[in-house]
Amino acid sequence: MSTPRPSKTPMPSKKAVVLVSGGLDSTTVLAMAKAEGYACYALSFDYGQRHQAELVAAHKTAIALGAESHKVVALDLRTIGGSALTDERIAVPTDAPEGIPATYVPARNTVFLSIALGWAEVMGAEAIWIGVNAVDYSGYPDCRPAFIDAFQTLANLATKVAVEGQSIRIKAPLLQLTKAEIIREGLRLGVDYSATVSCYQADADGAACGVCDACRLRRKGFEEAGVLDPTRYRA
Amino acid sequence: MSTPRPSKTPMPSKKAVVLVSGGLDSTTVLAMAKAEGYACYALSFDYGQRHQAELVAAHKTAIALGAESHKVVALDLRTIGGSALTDERIAVPTDAPEGIPATYVPARNTVFLSIALGWAEVMGAEAIWIGVNAVDYSGYPDCRPAFIDAFQTLANLATKVAVEGQSIRIKAPLLQLTKAEIIREGLRLGVDYSATVSCYQADADGAACGVCDACRLRRKGFEEAGVLDPTRYRA
Repeated sequence: MSTPRPSKTPMPSKKAVVLVSGGLDSTTVLAMAKAEGYACYALSFDYGQRHQAELVAAHKTAIALGAESHKVVALDLRTIGGSALTDERIAVPTDAPEGIPATYVPARNTVFLSIALGWAEVMGAEAIWIGVNAVDYSGYPDCRPAFIDAFQTLANLATKVAVEGQSIRIKAPLLQLTKAEIIREGLRLGVDYSATVSCYQADADGAACGVCDACRLRRKGFEEAGVLDPTRYRA
Repeated sequence: MSTPRPSKTPMPSKKAVVLVSGGLDSTTVLAMAKAEGYACYALSFDYGQRHQAELVAAHKTAIALGAESHKVVALDLRTIGGSALTDERIAVPTDAPEGIPATYVPARNTVFLSIALGWAEVMGAEAIWIGVNAVDYSGYPDCRPAFIDAFQTLANLATKVAVEGQSIRIKAPLLQLTKAEIIREGLRLGVDYSATVSCYQADADGAACGVCDACRLRRKGFEEAGVLDPTRYRA
């Protein structure tokens, strides 16, 4: 007599750390990692950003999309400052500025990927998924393909598992997509964008300002995708 | 009539972030950065390590060696664990183990350098000094020359200042020195090694266990340098 198969879906054997901010891009990436069969371990940072609504959104969307867990690491980047997101004295720009805007947080993706790398090594994950994008984006240097390639090279040298011959892959599937393409892919995979928060200065309920860089890029994306934007804008 | 020169020594114009742990290597590096004329901004991490004695030592030695300031960033790597230094359930080895020992903290230098990079960018520092060493060391992957080279490549892509054409240099002057050579260089520059703490399990007063990997390498270094070891060992 054969043993009956358990009715519960077994956990996939391949694990991934997925960086989630509660925003449109990283939520889509989580759905993509799930669709590729990874057991996803969502990771966010309480880094001193202007509001907690994005962490609430990150938790909700991670659970809704079937992440195994959602971890929040506390790291107060206000100690360093230097950005409109981590220093209250610097205003969030509401026009489209020339060059890299004041919302750029020095070395943020380097820091986030580094901590993700440590966690991936500890838990035996074979990939780190990140929602950086170099098409409809704010010009942040740490969202470019060359940056991701350089981090992969570093990751291949930095860890004990790397010395033992195992690579932790950095997956950045949105790098070359437009915001409209990202939205279409997410909708195809069942993402509920009404639960995501992109705005740099969302209120406690997650309602968006409608005028910051993140809101502008998000609005434009939904328009270009020809899809109703479910975001609650204050303006 | 010419304006009289102020009697106070003017602050050097070139700034550096110096990663200091309160140990022998990083304290020597701070002395070297000062000797090269940098205004030094010391940076340590309260990352969940086994004792606070090293942070006390880092502060004392930073001030004694003339750092402009000493910043401690809180980042609880116990959230991630995976090392004898960040998970109390994993013992600190007291013999010389084969391979990379349990005191390896996953991605620690990647994380520390990343945060240093952010701070260096915010304050306009042109260099980050780090006391990694690949001769008398514990085999940690993120202490090797190839790792430092890869981080430099990453740093040249990761920041806004890099996009604007300014490089933040990673300086690792101990990479190819023996522990004895490091000690001789430090003594030449006036470092008081009695104030430094290398031990992974120092007590609250900074007294060293004498048997962990860090203690073994330190003892051997003083012996080979032919210099009296001022460390207070418990065993």
